[in-house]
Amino acid sequence: MLDLLPVLGEQVFAERSLNAFMAQGRARCGDVRARITELLTDERHRRGVEAALHPLAGVRLHRPFEVGDYVDFYASENHAANVGRLFRPGGEALMPNWKHLPVGYHGRSGTVVVSGTPVLRPLGQRPGEGAPTFGPSRRLDFEAEVGFVIGAGSTVPIGVGAFADHVFGAFLVNDWSARDIQAWESRPLGPFLGKSFATSISPWIVPLEALEQARTAMPPQDPRPLPYLTGPGNTGFDLALEIRLNGQVVSCPPFSGMYWTPAQMLAHMTVNGARTRTGDFFASGTVSGPVREQRGCLLELSWGGAEPLTLGGSVRSFLEDGDEVVITATAPAADGARIGFGEVTGRILPGPPGRVVGPTRPSAGGPRGLGSRSW
Amino acid sequence: MLDLLPVLGEQVFAERSLNAFMAQGRARCGDVRARITELLTDERHRRGVEAALHPLAGVRLHRPFEVGDYVDFYASENHAANVGRLFRPGGEALMPNWKHLPVGYHGRSGTVVVSGTPVLRPLGQRPGEGAPTFGPSRRLDFEAEVGFVIGAGSTVPIGVGAFADHVFGAFLVNDWSARDIQAWESRPLGPFLGKSFATSISPWIVPLEALEQARTAMPPQDPRPLPYLTGPGNTGFDLALEIRLNGQVVSCPPFSGMYWTPAQMLAHMTVNGARTRTGDFFASGTVSGPVREQRGCLLELSWGGAEPLTLGGSVRSFLEDGDEVVITATAPAADGARIGFGEVTGRILPGPPGRVVGPTRPSAGGPRGLGSRSW
Repeated sequence: MLDLLPVLGEQVFAERSLNAFMAQGRARCGDVRARITELLTDERHRRGVEAALHPLAGVRLHRPFEVGDYVDFYASENHAANVGRLFRPGGEALMPNWKHLPVGYHGRSGTVVVSGTPVLRPLGQRPGEGAPTFGPSRRLDFEAEVGFVIGAGSTVPIGVGAFADHVFGAFLVNDWSARDIQAWESRPLGPFLGKSFATSISPWIVPLEALEQARTAMPPQDPRPLPYLTGPGNTGFDLALEIRLNGQVVSCPPFSGMYWTPAQMLAHMTVNGARTRTGDFFASGTVSGPVREQRGCLLELSWGGAEPLTLGGSVRSFLEDGDEVVITATAPAADGARIGFGEVTGRILPGPPGRVVGPTRPSAGGPRGLGSRSW
Repeated sequence: MLDLLPVLGEQVFAERSLNAFMAQGRARCGDVRARITELLTDERHRRGVEAALHPLAGVRLHRPFEVGDYVDFYASENHAANVGRLFRPGGEALMPNWKHLPVGYHGRSGTVVVSGTPVLRPLGQRPGEGAPTFGPSRRLDFEAEVGFVIGAGSTVPIGVGAFADHVFGAFLVNDWSARDIQAWESRPLGPFLGKSFATSISPWIVPLEALEQARTAMPPQDPRPLPYLTGPGNTGFDLALEIRLNGQVVSCPPFSGMYWTPAQMLAHMTVNGARTRTGDFFASGTVSGPVREQRGCLLELSWGGAEPLTLGGSVRSFLEDGDEVVITATAPAADGARIGFGEVTGRILPGPPGRVVGPTRPSAGGPRGLGSRSW
């Protein structure tokens, strides 16, 4: 890992997050990237750079930016159609609006955590016979997604052609989901506590410029989107995701098959006049391909629990305590090379039995108390 | 207005927002409130205090705190039932989950603006025959709500009995809503662009301690809520709201009639383990009473446009450009006095015709350009 402060000598690289640097905008990011490339590849700089290099094993990676608003989309047709079939059997797989706009909602930015942070199984209301029951989620799931963070914010809508002027880079997201809590709470205002307990992000942001070779034809869209969702630069990105559960590869979702492009998501998110700030990010929603081995969450992989996965000597419909999920991705680069996205990992821990819910229990309730939770 | 910096001489009152002060917690807030009361009521301090007093007409009020996460609830049974009847005629007015939990969702914190900020009519996709159309919202609405901001954050769930340890105070919220955009986009993930263009808040935060006289019996709840939604200190608040549209009172919603209490909202919001931070806030959702003159939004007041309001010489189903909405509230205090909440106001401006949606149009498009938008 290269420590930029001593080699570039600028205050923005002494900050605890990337926000100040990201806010400097596209041209500045390109200049710094070129300079780093030169430093790392030109033999003349070797001596000066070596002192600023740290073995990855010896550093602790932090959340890379301060999160403003977090928006989660639902942009994979395969995912949306699978979920539609599972939740509305007999009905239309997609809602009537789905092919006219990228459906999305706001998530909780205060519980966005860096890869490696343990995820405590959330408590909540679960659907029951007649009345709900309360307790730990029994249908805890991951969602493999790709996120895009805003560098230079905007007070005006960001058209698809202005995407690269405002998006600093891309990273991996695991949008942990408690399917039972989510199913019960979501009507009519959407997901809330089924998602808000934790969202994990990878610590590395891949600058958008590094993804030029990954740009790919946008998918066929029918009906033709409204004009504000069209324009030059509106491409997909050919990222290859991989999901491992307890070390075993369970899915390889292709990002190139997403129905809506990231530029369309951002154009839609801002067309109503909503401003964007440095550190705002949006995620794609679960990335799922057309075949089972490309589905991006357990809800789809186990078909709502009806077709459990075989995992080593055991089976899984949903996540059990102790399970670890690792999502990685690569993208094509120049000369046949591939760029790595690092990884976003998380291990499920049981929710604490003595969780504090009022002032009558003064402390965090035993060794598993939430007081030691690391956000 | 009292300038606290010279009279209390502490750095937290030199900050641009209340966050640093709010983070100091309940006891500290009580101490400062007692000291201010003494300064303003004890004749001996008169000379020292007078220099720190500024006429309200001569100051510009700012957004009182930096917003972390913003959660909007849906806690008025009258409102939820009216909306249910309007959107699902013939069906059950309330969803099956509604009486088991306070339904809520995350809103956009980056577009929370202080009272007085003009509100530009949002553009977006509106329901159409077969396909949606694009343009300015034709069903722009206000929603009169009460907000509660977190002072001391928590990494553990905040039970109903711990409400007063974590909530700094209350204020007024206008959750502007574009009903046509909202209706089309909301399935299945809830409101998004129909709300995210602007949410206005009042510049004064009423400390929770000042509302002790306003505490009132909590409403009858049937079925009995789950244990995590019960406990001591779980009361309603007897706030009297008033909504004026272009100077004419159109509604007087009573906050005392809300089904879910603010303490229940906070307990629910955190029971899954979601941490809270200083500056996070939650709003009640539209406050509506049982009769027409107590409905908290135009959607209900005009019954979806079927029963327009008479307003001076004109009629209104939804907001027109130039309309001004003013929401005020008072609460009972000691000795029969009433505490004022100040007001949250906003005037609707037309969305700019030359709104920028891509790099091909270089600037903000004429005199109404968004570039001058004041966030």
